[in-house]
Amino acid sequence: MQLHSFFNSSTSYRVRIALALKGLPYDTLPVNIRTGEHRDADYIAQVNPSAAVPALTDDDFRLGQSLAILDYLDQIQPTPRLIPLEPRRRARVLELAALIACDIHPVNNLRVLRYLDSELKVTPQQKSAWYRHWVAEGMAGVERLLARANAGPWCFGDAPTLADVCLVPQVANALRMDCDLSAYPRCLAVVEHARHEPAFEAAQPQRQPDYVA
Amino acid sequence: MQLHSFFNSSTSYRVRIALALKGLPYDTLPVNIRTGEHRDADYIAQVNPSAAVPALTDDDFRLGQSLAILDYLDQIQPTPRLIPLEPRRRARVLELAALIACDIHPVNNLRVLRYLDSELKVTPQQKSAWYRHWVAEGMAGVERLLARANAGPWCFGDAPTLADVCLVPQVANALRMDCDLSAYPRCLAVVEHARHEPAFEAAQPQRQPDYVA
Repeated sequence: MQLHSFFNSSTSYRVRIALALKGLPYDTLPVNIRTGEHRDADYIAQVNPSAAVPALTDDDFRLGQSLAILDYLDQIQPTPRLIPLEPRRRARVLELAALIACDIHPVNNLRVLRYLDSELKVTPQQKSAWYRHWVAEGMAGVERLLARANAGPWCFGDAPTLADVCLVPQVANALRMDCDLSAYPRCLAVVEHARHEPAFEAAQPQRQPDYVA
Repeated sequence: MQLHSFFNSSTSYRVRIALALKGLPYDTLPVNIRTGEHRDADYIAQVNPSAAVPALTDDDFRLGQSLAILDYLDQIQPTPRLIPLEPRRRARVLELAALIACDIHPVNNLRVLRYLDSELKVTPQQKSAWYRHWVAEGMAGVERLLARANAGPWCFGDAPTLADVCLVPQVANALRMDCDLSAYPRCLAVVEHARHEPAFEAAQPQRQPDYVA
């Protein structure tokens, strides 16, 4: 398999964690979203109609959207399973993943921040406040979901799930942007636990071939 | 079951379609997100830690996040199945649903538009341009995904899936905001087909008990 990825993209990061957890070998094909390579006509036509990273190539099958890729990987390599089968446990995992993937990440991703700059001409202070606002709103929700689950050491018990796969990159992004996350101790405990797991470590931005400081 | 719903919320609309397609009876509990009822402390503590609509109550089980609810409904009532089981077909459906649920809807929902107004003091023209920009970006991607699938009459063949459940409310929102969708004929054809389906009709905003013109 091949993963079209950008080192600093948190959605690519999610898929890299899942691939590593499942022990699936793959080649990284870097796509530099800072220079707009994801909007290249050939990339859109031949790799990913969503015009984004990540995208997975599995023989002749090409798939975009990290949530779809993560589910696909769980289908073709169910060990270890990231999305539980029991309906209510499954629902809890998907709920937390969706809170991150729909309520936090999209509002703060690169294209939105660039629009704030280029079209709305916001000040650096306004852009920073925007970023922190949506992180604070969303992380408060994540913390409440974890409080209800009585979690540990992972979001939902003793093995990582899709929830952890989404949470770790989101927290990494927020820390990179200097957000104060001290109000979310359960989130931070999960991330601290993940830091020592080889699959999560291997997926980190600074371990990627296209990493630049 | 009970659905905490707002008539004009497109994520609530998704769940209403699925409940109707599956013939699952439920009571609607309106939550007025315009007046902030979804941020009420009791609602957050007792119903939905995500502080949003929709939320589903199934006996003592309470679930937020429309994507998680839709998967849960597909688990407990698989007929008709909205998320296919075959891995590649399943992946295609989830890819299109995620493009709408992650790339289009979150950037244009009520809380973001209100932030643009109250915090960034944008002009009505800037707010309208913002809305249209993300609709255009996202719908172009949806149209490309449909072109690749050679779809019809539904997004992926002769029965509705999660993709249609997400597409119809998204298009309804865009039309309500006067977006020009003529560049997306495959999307419009699916929506036109859905318009005559009783389950999609029953889920429309104007059919809800909390509807106001």
